[in-house]
Amino acid sequence: MIFDCHVDVQLRPGISDPQGSTIEKALPALGFDGVAGVRVGKSVMFRLEADDEAAARREVEDMCNRFLTNPVIEDASIRVSASS
Amino acid sequence: MIFDCHVDVQLRPGISDPQGSTIEKALPALGFDGVAGVRVGKSVMFRLEADDEAAARREVEDMCNRFLTNPVIEDASIRVSASS
Repeated sequence: MIFDCHVDVQLRPGISDPQGSTIEKALPALGFDGVAGVRVGKSVMFRLEADDEAAARREVEDMCNRFLTNPVIEDASIRVSASS
Repeated sequence: MIFDCHVDVQLRPGISDPQGSTIEKALPALGFDGVAGVRVGKSVMFRLEADDEAAARREVEDMCNRFLTNPVIEDASIRVSASS
């Protein structure tokens, strides 16, 4: 079975995010007020072949820990759904 | 009202994604097979003050068009939800 996987990688709370701060400082100059707490992360999408959804999720978690994220400073949120 | 906003920016289909190709080529060497179609994008999260959800979404769409994405080569998917 083919699964659509989406991994959203964000810096952990408390880790400094200069890219987010820069965006936050730039937005008011463009007329966008009321924006706070900007955080910028990575978004990785792919298709994965696996026996079932649980197996797909396990494999994606393993990928995150070993390759897609730096677990010391980053958190991953994983979405897996059967591909249509 | 405060809204949690999440903007997922991906390259448009057909636009070459060297970062995604590199990940796709690296994964089999680490023992992860069956991965295809890897695309890497940006994920921007922030809190936004707005009158209602429709106004918040309009403001985020405007931000995407003017600042957060390059509409020529990138697509944004926007999620807005009332902050708890």
